[in-house]
Amino acid sequence: MVNSITRLVILGSTGSIGRQTLQVVRDLSSRFRVVGLAAGQNLELLSAQIAEFKPEFIYHQSAANSKLITGSLKLVTLEALAAHPDVDIVVIATSGNAGLSATLAAVKAGKKVAIANKEPLVMAGEIITREASQSGAQLLPIDSEHSAIWQCLNGEAQPPKRIILTASGGPFRGFSPQQLAAVTTQQALQHPSWLMGNKVTIDSATLMNKGLEIMEARWLFGVPLEKIDVIVHPQSIIHSMVEFVDGSFKAQLGYPDMRLPIQYALTYPERVPNQDLPKLDWTKIRELTFEEPDYKKFPCLQLAVTAAKTGGTSPAALCAADEIAVGLFLKESIKFTDIARLVELVLAEHQTISNPALDDIINTDRWARDRTLQIFNRDKKC
Amino acid sequence: MVNSITRLVILGSTGSIGRQTLQVVRDLSSRFRVVGLAAGQNLELLSAQIAEFKPEFIYHQSAANSKLITGSLKLVTLEALAAHPDVDIVVIATSGNAGLSATLAAVKAGKKVAIANKEPLVMAGEIITREASQSGAQLLPIDSEHSAIWQCLNGEAQPPKRIILTASGGPFRGFSPQQLAAVTTQQALQHPSWLMGNKVTIDSATLMNKGLEIMEARWLFGVPLEKIDVIVHPQSIIHSMVEFVDGSFKAQLGYPDMRLPIQYALTYPERVPNQDLPKLDWTKIRELTFEEPDYKKFPCLQLAVTAAKTGGTSPAALCAADEIAVGLFLKESIKFTDIARLVELVLAEHQTISNPALDDIINTDRWARDRTLQIFNRDKKC
Repeated sequence: MVNSITRLVILGSTGSIGRQTLQVVRDLSSRFRVVGLAAGQNLELLSAQIAEFKPEFIYHQSAANSKLITGSLKLVTLEALAAHPDVDIVVIATSGNAGLSATLAAVKAGKKVAIANKEPLVMAGEIITREASQSGAQLLPIDSEHSAIWQCLNGEAQPPKRIILTASGGPFRGFSPQQLAAVTTQQALQHPSWLMGNKVTIDSATLMNKGLEIMEARWLFGVPLEKIDVIVHPQSIIHSMVEFVDGSFKAQLGYPDMRLPIQYALTYPERVPNQDLPKLDWTKIRELTFEEPDYKKFPCLQLAVTAAKTGGTSPAALCAADEIAVGLFLKESIKFTDIARLVELVLAEHQTISNPALDDIINTDRWARDRTLQIFNRDKKC
Repeated sequence: MVNSITRLVILGSTGSIGRQTLQVVRDLSSRFRVVGLAAGQNLELLSAQIAEFKPEFIYHQSAANSKLITGSLKLVTLEALAAHPDVDIVVIATSGNAGLSATLAAVKAGKKVAIANKEPLVMAGEIITREASQSGAQLLPIDSEHSAIWQCLNGEAQPPKRIILTASGGPFRGFSPQQLAAVTTQQALQHPSWLMGNKVTIDSATLMNKGLEIMEARWLFGVPLEKIDVIVHPQSIIHSMVEFVDGSFKAQLGYPDMRLPIQYALTYPERVPNQDLPKLDWTKIRELTFEEPDYKKFPCLQLAVTAAKTGGTSPAALCAADEIAVGLFLKESIKFTDIARLVELVLAEHQTISNPALDDIINTDRWARDRTLQIFNRDKKC
């Protein structure tokens, strides 16, 4: 069982999840072969990864103009990489909407698709899950919350009665509206428990991330929205919970470290010892606390829930507006509280298309990006 | 799947677990038929249960001399009841050593044996598990901690790396040695979270119960003693946890109510909705806390761990001495702290027999009971 080598492609290999995935590959090197790597930026790190992991295929926007392509290394498109016949598992570690077409390509090719980038599922969950059921592709969650739910559902014959997504609450839990308006980019990038990329770290601070996770859970586990709850759990030890029809709950727990859910997705259904992973010590954990999320102070969570209920192209508009708004905040062009404001204004203008085709989703994505920037520029002039 | 009726025998039907088992049968009446009931005392309640559930067979010490046996109702031995061919699941809800021979009879007959009475496994775990592997009998835990572990192991292909038994800590957590010496029977019978029989309630107060559970877990899940930890968790919401080889933990959670683990054992592998069971509300649970058990103030836990490590007939001597000592405490003949003292004195005198036959265990049980009473009488005269 252990003898067969799992052949991996990592899309977004220079980002936070990509680097942590390669750390797991390093730790369990006898089990994996990296067939392909793709990165959007950071040519230098990609070059180092190529030297270390010796993939056969790569994708990088600027690779053709670089000295990267030497020897037998081949430059291919993101979609070709995701669907390559030599690949067993495609790790979608891209950020924002970047992973959508590659996720669809991997799904159509019937791959195991390990998903860390939640936006493709949020934008096009219905299409992706339909394609997966036709091709036999398996969607394996890497997000810690969804990995927790997946682990809790292991061996259970019946669907969950309820899913409880835990949220750290981010660095600004308990802040006053005035304090929230004054939050700096620097502060927002300091997540209290998780080490993640910039986009998802800001999304965690606004609680938008938890809203996206509600939609991700909906599609991954086929659970209706009204059966998915969010509870704030600042210690980030319980990664999520499932309630079953008999009222019993199961939770998955561990120190907040993305390498565990990454490894679980890559070695599933086997669990593999890894000395590098931090060990949970129950004599040191004095308390786990829980509180309800504050939808008023963190309107992004409510916006996401509303977009999820509206459905159609609404979640795609939400994702696009959020990605642009977070980008503006990272460049210190808007205030922290402007992220929710911009998303809300864009959603208010969006004409939702029900049962959208992929083109409708892509068009919505483009429209919402443009519109977010337009509103930003308009308001700047006021 | 639901169409087939599960035929039950409940040994100890008038005790706390027996009554709660019958409540589950009442709640899910279309699924179960009560074939037999057995009770050690409380003829009046047994009579009412016979009228309600109309079993074909009963056992009671004084039944022959009573007006209980009417119509087609048959009086049989405890062992005949446990091994009856018309029975699917035997619920062992007896207390102390009373369930040993019936448990063995049910196991040898290849039944599903739902175990709430932990002493038989503690006394004769090696014999019971060996017989079960020969007959194909399934041991289904009813103890909430062991049900939790069982649920967490569901669907997992690999054995656990570690089991963490949670303990409420009992009503006297944090008491000083002086306070512990002054504890009344009345106080000890008020368990902070669980509704249970008198013996197990006192065992919970001394933490002996947790020591017995370590041994129960060892036999039920084939996990070595050094891989079983205890952590005090006063809220009794996490019923126990399992750590897997990759460092991931799973926990099972719920309000402390024995009907959930009872029902899970009776309906396994199916989970069944039951409106009567209390619902866990995460908006009301503010915190879950954890602390290490105090082995010095609660020496029964250490005595049990030592007896477990010694093995052979030592756990049987522990169980017997504890049962007598708890009985003396319930009659207000000894102090709360005398329970551990008596057990310790008896264990110190016990000549452990390794790899014991059943007779060795039964003889040890008898010897330790007698010896506990002798020491009690001797010390009383001093």
